[in-house]
Amino acid sequence: MGTVPNRKQDREELRGKNKNNLDRLGTVPNRKPIRKTKKERKQKMKNKAITPRNEDFAKWYTDVVKAARLAAYSNVKGCVVIEPNGYAIWEKMQSTLDKMFKETGHQNVCMPMLIPENLMKKEGELINGFAPEVAWVTQGGEKELDERMCIRPTSETLFSDYYAGIVKSYRDLPIKYNQWCNVLRWEKETRPFLRSREFLWQEGHTIHETAKEAEDETKQMLQIYEKFFKEYLAIPVITGRKTEKEKFAGAEYTLTVEALMYNGVSLQSGTSHYFGQKFSKAYDISFSNRENEQEYVYQTSWGVTTRMIGALIMVHSDEAGLVLPPKIAPRQVVIVPIGEAEEVKNLSQKAYNELKNAGISVYIDDSEKSPGFRFAQSEVNGIPVRIEIGERDLKENKITFARRDTREKLVQTADVDFAKYVEKLLEEIQNNLYNRALERRNGLTYECTKLEEVEKIMNEKPGFVKAMWCGSEECELKMKEIKGTKSRCILENEKHIHDKCIVCGKEAKHLVVWGIQY
Amino acid sequence: MGTVPNRKQDREELRGKNKNNLDRLGTVPNRKPIRKTKKERKQKMKNKAITPRNEDFAKWYTDVVKAARLAAYSNVKGCVVIEPNGYAIWEKMQSTLDKMFKETGHQNVCMPMLIPENLMKKEGELINGFAPEVAWVTQGGEKELDERMCIRPTSETLFSDYYAGIVKSYRDLPIKYNQWCNVLRWEKETRPFLRSREFLWQEGHTIHETAKEAEDETKQMLQIYEKFFKEYLAIPVITGRKTEKEKFAGAEYTLTVEALMYNGVSLQSGTSHYFGQKFSKAYDISFSNRENEQEYVYQTSWGVTTRMIGALIMVHSDEAGLVLPPKIAPRQVVIVPIGEAEEVKNLSQKAYNELKNAGISVYIDDSEKSPGFRFAQSEVNGIPVRIEIGERDLKENKITFARRDTREKLVQTADVDFAKYVEKLLEEIQNNLYNRALERRNGLTYECTKLEEVEKIMNEKPGFVKAMWCGSEECELKMKEIKGTKSRCILENEKHIHDKCIVCGKEAKHLVVWGIQY
Repeated sequence: MGTVPNRKQDREELRGKNKNNLDRLGTVPNRKPIRKTKKERKQKMKNKAITPRNEDFAKWYTDVVKAARLAAYSNVKGCVVIEPNGYAIWEKMQSTLDKMFKETGHQNVCMPMLIPENLMKKEGELINGFAPEVAWVTQGGEKELDERMCIRPTSETLFSDYYAGIVKSYRDLPIKYNQWCNVLRWEKETRPFLRSREFLWQEGHTIHETAKEAEDETKQMLQIYEKFFKEYLAIPVITGRKTEKEKFAGAEYTLTVEALMYNGVSLQSGTSHYFGQKFSKAYDISFSNRENEQEYVYQTSWGVTTRMIGALIMVHSDEAGLVLPPKIAPRQVVIVPIGEAEEVKNLSQKAYNELKNAGISVYIDDSEKSPGFRFAQSEVNGIPVRIEIGERDLKENKITFARRDTREKLVQTADVDFAKYVEKLLEEIQNNLYNRALERRNGLTYECTKLEEVEKIMNEKPGFVKAMWCGSEECELKMKEIKGTKSRCILENEKHIHDKCIVCGKEAKHLVVWGIQY
Repeated sequence: MGTVPNRKQDREELRGKNKNNLDRLGTVPNRKPIRKTKKERKQKMKNKAITPRNEDFAKWYTDVVKAARLAAYSNVKGCVVIEPNGYAIWEKMQSTLDKMFKETGHQNVCMPMLIPENLMKKEGELINGFAPEVAWVTQGGEKELDERMCIRPTSETLFSDYYAGIVKSYRDLPIKYNQWCNVLRWEKETRPFLRSREFLWQEGHTIHETAKEAEDETKQMLQIYEKFFKEYLAIPVITGRKTEKEKFAGAEYTLTVEALMYNGVSLQSGTSHYFGQKFSKAYDISFSNRENEQEYVYQTSWGVTTRMIGALIMVHSDEAGLVLPPKIAPRQVVIVPIGEAEEVKNLSQKAYNELKNAGISVYIDDSEKSPGFRFAQSEVNGIPVRIEIGERDLKENKITFARRDTREKLVQTADVDFAKYVEKLLEEIQNNLYNRALERRNGLTYECTKLEEVEKIMNEKPGFVKAMWCGSEECELKMKEIKGTKSRCILENEKHIHDKCIVCGKEAKHLVVWGIQY
């Protein structure tokens, strides 16, 4: 999917863009723009300059990231600057998930970002899995370190070491901690939000008295992710178990949330791991159980990342820019007054007050830019609802509500109950985005029993392919030869569609969803 | 103030401690503790094992950190694990400050954590100031890097580089961004929250069209910090300008918030820097001004850290453990039901409901531990108000409210209006903590005109010393010979107390506050 674009080009594109102040609600800007028309024309052209999605999906994606000012490339290779519009989405994701985590008894902590090499190496599979992609600190201050340390790519090692020190008895269990932090993985090919060296995430790490309790936790967290994707991000997901080849290094098994992007490519969007006693044995997290015997704890970890912002773009957005589900949009409604008339100002303020009182996140864009410019801005930034209040319309007792999802314009009388009408509209948009994504995904989900079918699909119109698998890594590798098609997950509760492995024709063990991945 | 204690001792002390689930509100635990009496006795002894504050302040401090489970030492040298009780305080600080920042027009972003060496070195004073204390990444994945990168000790360089790419005209200004993140400084002597290699903070970075606007921003942020310390942390502060010697590397000047700890030692608690055009010239952040000429922007940065948690401990806490001002306490009230009687349970639930509905953060501790144990737990954790509801008391229509700040017990009738009474009590506690701290600080603030006086004070009963200074670094160094006494800040708006420098006797330029620092 391409690499990091040229920084200079990027700067050129960013120049002259207007800042969006998330917090300036209904205030008048203090300066008149000069050469308004020229600048606006330029800006309009830029919005239009988003590459058509069907022409070049990868370019369209980075165009949207830039046009909506979600992130900018930095001079730190493989790392981006998450800009205010992007970070506000992350803050909304954080607050929503954090509440769900706390309601299920999790608490937040903060572990160090550095891991001494010996600590990192205690669990062999983990270090083998991560060795090619960690960054090493070898010098502190002006001295070479006796022992190098890596920047955390994930924190199982640190949590395990900490837990070993505080757990004594089964009465201390379970411990269910989470942290919101940055991690670093030395990726070669990077793309904003989808794959970057540094990214933001949450990582939950829990320890339990019994395998069953830990496995229940693993499942519960997967369900929370599924609910969050469905209800907040309006993204339908497939959930299941990763194959041995695709599971997390060091896990007994990995459960995963897999989403399908607009172009039919799969995105691993969240994972929940069951470790059994692998780490607890390596790090000596033992406790005295109910029979007063020493036993190792059962462990889980689970995480989602800023990659979810990438998923939002690739599932919902369009040629006019970002499209955000109302429940995750930092700003849900923009009011655009047109003209200077007193009644326009008054009605705008009335709408603003009523919406704000109803708990809707709303702002007034009363800048001196042309209405067309302001409309385009609200679209590129993915504001779900725009209310246009103009002098001429008001004479006919009319105002207009523009939906971002369908780009429809809905005319209402000026005495509309703003809160009630907008609440309903936001709900409709949320549902419509989900249903649209679900319908698209269903249309791109195939059942195959022959390899040629998979080949044809992945070449012509890729998506999720359901097919039977014998369980051998050899057959997985064979499948990978078809445009890099990988197993997304094993569907454990669905009816088998055939009794033979699609690759080797031997007896099939699992129904698997396959896809081309990011 | 001592170094990092032995990890093994630490583990011993932590073992057998009970977890405090911040989110378990009013539910019954599902297991009966075994050998209750023995364990509780042990726990009680531990709470009592907090070293008396006047005996060994440094040991008392780490005892409180451990007993209240705010942080634990980790196997990563110089770094701690911030545990749930500590992290919840940080979350409360974050949400309060973040709101104040957003209300003044700031937006959050996220910069990379790594800084390439050439980028770090563009501004000479900064790199000279930070060179001895940065950690260098020299290897990424399995390869040596062509250019090493440091883990950010602060992010002026990254923000400047980013701003250079996005600013074109005065119409793009001001830009007022902030980030909440971790930073790393390779300290030798570390103490939890006060000085650790990695710490959490916020760093605001703003750029402006004029020097005046940037200087106003510098002052405004200092005022926000002052307000936050006074109104939320209940800590009185002195504000002023740092001397040339003590200012931030690369700043034109640094404004500071200085607090006095219980033992008379000063703590630099927040800083706001004015850079003028130093960084904008080094990083080429230029814009076309209103006269259509190229000009460099005027810049600021400002930050506060997890050190504020250390200040809370050292200003308010006591021998029974943590004391928290209600406005920053993650849990404000604990209800302790005593006995199994139905009326005890019902009244506890009623109190819980009424307080919760009033927006007060409350939980019920109905674990099967003895009342004495639960009382001690609430004290060590610094819960501002404890409500004791017992069967015997209820027969006399009585319940008890215990204040954490004064440890007074207040008897009320059982039909008390819980919300109203507790709201008033919380306010009283907040005010009392502030006034107590203010009175103590005033008692430890001295005016001196002779060096012998300073020497006597710093040896016997240290505090803030106000004294005149000629402005020479030589005299600052002379002062430092007195137990490390340093200038805290220059008081710019206070009346001079003398006309001669306290050190050299030459003409004095500034009234300065001096103190022994952490």
